[in-house]
Amino acid sequence: MALLLYERLCADDRRPSPFCWRARLALAHKGLAPELRAIKFTESDEVAFSGQSRVPVLVDGATVIHDSWAIACHLEDNYPEAPSLFDGPGGRALSRLVNHWVDHSLQRALAPVLAPYVLALALPEDRSYYRRTREAKFGMTMEQLAVRRPALLEALHPVLEPLRQRLAETPFLCGERPAYADYLVFGEFQLARSVCDVDLLGAEEEALRNWRTCMLDLYDGLARSITAFETAA
Amino acid sequence: MALLLYERLCADDRRPSPFCWRARLALAHKGLAPELRAIKFTESDEVAFSGQSRVPVLVDGATVIHDSWAIACHLEDNYPEAPSLFDGPGGRALSRLVNHWVDHSLQRALAPVLAPYVLALALPEDRSYYRRTREAKFGMTMEQLAVRRPALLEALHPVLEPLRQRLAETPFLCGERPAYADYLVFGEFQLARSVCDVDLLGAEEEALRNWRTCMLDLYDGLARSITAFETAA
Repeated sequence: MALLLYERLCADDRRPSPFCWRARLALAHKGLAPELRAIKFTESDEVAFSGQSRVPVLVDGATVIHDSWAIACHLEDNYPEAPSLFDGPGGRALSRLVNHWVDHSLQRALAPVLAPYVLALALPEDRSYYRRTREAKFGMTMEQLAVRRPALLEALHPVLEPLRQRLAETPFLCGERPAYADYLVFGEFQLARSVCDVDLLGAEEEALRNWRTCMLDLYDGLARSITAFETAA
Repeated sequence: MALLLYERLCADDRRPSPFCWRARLALAHKGLAPELRAIKFTESDEVAFSGQSRVPVLVDGATVIHDSWAIACHLEDNYPEAPSLFDGPGGRALSRLVNHWVDHSLQRALAPVLAPYVLALALPEDRSYYRRTREAKFGMTMEQLAVRRPALLEALHPVLEPLRQRLAETPFLCGERPAYADYLVFGEFQLARSVCDVDLLGAEEEALRNWRTCMLDLYDGLARSITAFETAA
């Protein structure tokens, strides 16, 4: 059955969307290789058939699924012979909690650090839309965000502490092997390296740094293969 | 086989330790009713046989286990016929991540709000130790913390957002039934209602408020049965 994944495209062929990386890595985890179709912010019409305007959108035969969590659940339920994304019902329930933590705590700390870089890399026709919506969200201009970067990076440090603690115990957040919660968190690091050369991790962050390297190596270096800045591993 | 749980005792017979509540609720989840032995901060010698000084300590026949996470894993592995605390290996791995989030993110936001109340309720012989260690940790006096309470409560609000989002979907963090991750988070609310009449939840917090009520009702109102302040449900 043919699989088609719509994902976000930015300038220089960059693919920074963490939501799309969740879907790409979940598909790879299941051993599936979808056809990819990359669309710009202003090309939302291309996924209008899904009943909404955002990516990722997965087309799996006759089934259309939007929203990264719905895609993960679809893959888990429809490809049960492939390795599990959740490793049991408890893992599914708590992956969803981790999903909300990433969306509301980790992204909240990361987004103001990264926004000026995302703007700089946005396609010319997307820039005005991106600047307007994000400046309204953060309540300050992109230039003000850039000036505050050192303080924003310092505020990120304690948010990462649960990850540090967990990765001091096992190589992946989900244990000895990566699973969906790893992809949820890694999507944010993938966004960061797609848009800027700021390393979010200090030199002493061995556990998180090793984990990020392992995540980049997965599935024949799938996440490493995109256009990205080199300094961030 | 006889089970004995050592837990923390404060003034007025209060039992505020969230770590001990994790163990008490995990035991109840497994259908186990341990004998309880409550010790003061200054009575650490009573658990010296465990090779360290903190509670909870569980004695299960010839086995001595300290640390709330180790106790949960002991119960899961040694009482496999009783309802699962983790609901699969993925649930165990991510419960540990939630454990670290509670210890390093939720507690970080809650502790400075609650510390002055814990001090007021500490047994007279424990007060000097508690004040000295906690003021060193927070870098300010108990009186300064009390003055800053409104700002500290406001800073707690976004930290709770992943819980709000998750509880808008299912009655418990772990799904249709409570499990260990629910006990991890609930321990902090139990600490709060044990020591103060400040409600951590605003009036509009329906999902979190309903969940807290359900948690108090579990196991014949086990968590509701202790000495606590009434305003916090």
